[in-house]
Amino acid sequence: MPRTEEANQRIREEQREKILEGARKVFARKGRVATMADVATEAGVSQGLAYRYFANKEALFQALIEQVMQSTHTLMQRVVEMPGTPGERLDFLLSRIVKGRHKHLELVEFVQLLSQMQSSEEIPDHLREIVVRQGQPLRDMVRQLIIEGQATGEVAGDDPDQLMTHIFACLDGIFRLALRDPERFHKHVPDARIILRLLKP
Amino acid sequence: MPRTEEANQRIREEQREKILEGARKVFARKGRVATMADVATEAGVSQGLAYRYFANKEALFQALIEQVMQSTHTLMQRVVEMPGTPGERLDFLLSRIVKGRHKHLELVEFVQLLSQMQSSEEIPDHLREIVVRQGQPLRDMVRQLIIEGQATGEVAGDDPDQLMTHIFACLDGIFRLALRDPERFHKHVPDARIILRLLKP
Repeated sequence: MPRTEEANQRIREEQREKILEGARKVFARKGRVATMADVATEAGVSQGLAYRYFANKEALFQALIEQVMQSTHTLMQRVVEMPGTPGERLDFLLSRIVKGRHKHLELVEFVQLLSQMQSSEEIPDHLREIVVRQGQPLRDMVRQLIIEGQATGEVAGDDPDQLMTHIFACLDGIFRLALRDPERFHKHVPDARIILRLLKP
Repeated sequence: MPRTEEANQRIREEQREKILEGARKVFARKGRVATMADVATEAGVSQGLAYRYFANKEALFQALIEQVMQSTHTLMQRVVEMPGTPGERLDFLLSRIVKGRHKHLELVEFVQLLSQMQSSEEIPDHLREIVVRQGQPLRDMVRQLIIEGQATGEVAGDDPDQLMTHIFACLDGIFRLALRDPERFHKHVPDARIILRLLKP
């Protein structure tokens, strides 16, 4: 029995996701020197198949960046729609970011890597622009919730930019630990509870 | 009038420090692909002079690592000798680490870079061993002060390893910010006050 169009579509999506997963791992590990061949090997597919889904490294970069942006957007939407005080929303948002690391860790590392390529010829300007900007809406949301949380007395009365900077620097360090030493990370950073203390009045 | 031996010695020390400073900057910026030629250019000296002080990149690595270890050792010694409660000592220690970033930032980045070279052929085993271990005494001291601070009620009663892991991950993120965006760092991370909140009961 020939496969239905639906089944084919599902297979294509699974293969595409498998290649993207391999790309996340390889880029996080090898950085920008990683090749399409590395990606294919990591994903367990042939180079030919990898190229059928992504014409070149640039197309892969683009798809990976879209995944980060989509996932951040979905999380932010949930925070907008949830009930609760500003402090409760901050708690939810940061807890989800720390928990979501499992899936998006390599992606986070990859984005950081790209954002550090200030003048690389290997990443086109329009992509670099997107990468540099992609974290901004999330930073804006955290900053806004900090200000609202200060009004309700749930957040310390420091300069909101100082608080926000500390939160994101701390998350950055936590994510790097998770990549470098996953075992220690899982054991010692079970949730966002200690990180949230940075905001404690 | 010929220079005295003392004056010659001072000049040699200044030149050596200038080359090491250039090396810190170049390694932090370009990573392990940096060459002796890059170091010499950054330091504003000839390649010949650079080679007179350091036979090769390995000798440079070794000297840089010794600088980190020496500076950490001096700071820890001060903490051992200072009066005050465990909480006050933690405060002093972490404040000094955050303040000391100006001088040792590139060095910190360089050490992190080396510690990530799990299987590089460019750094000999004995040096990698030293790099991986060099942070351990400082981590041990912070962990011990956390436990003592819990006994005096100055530090939150969480698992000491969890607290320690958060402190060092946060410092790591803060140092990375300082390298990536010094202006934002200086404006938004003036001291260790907010970081110390991670330990707040």
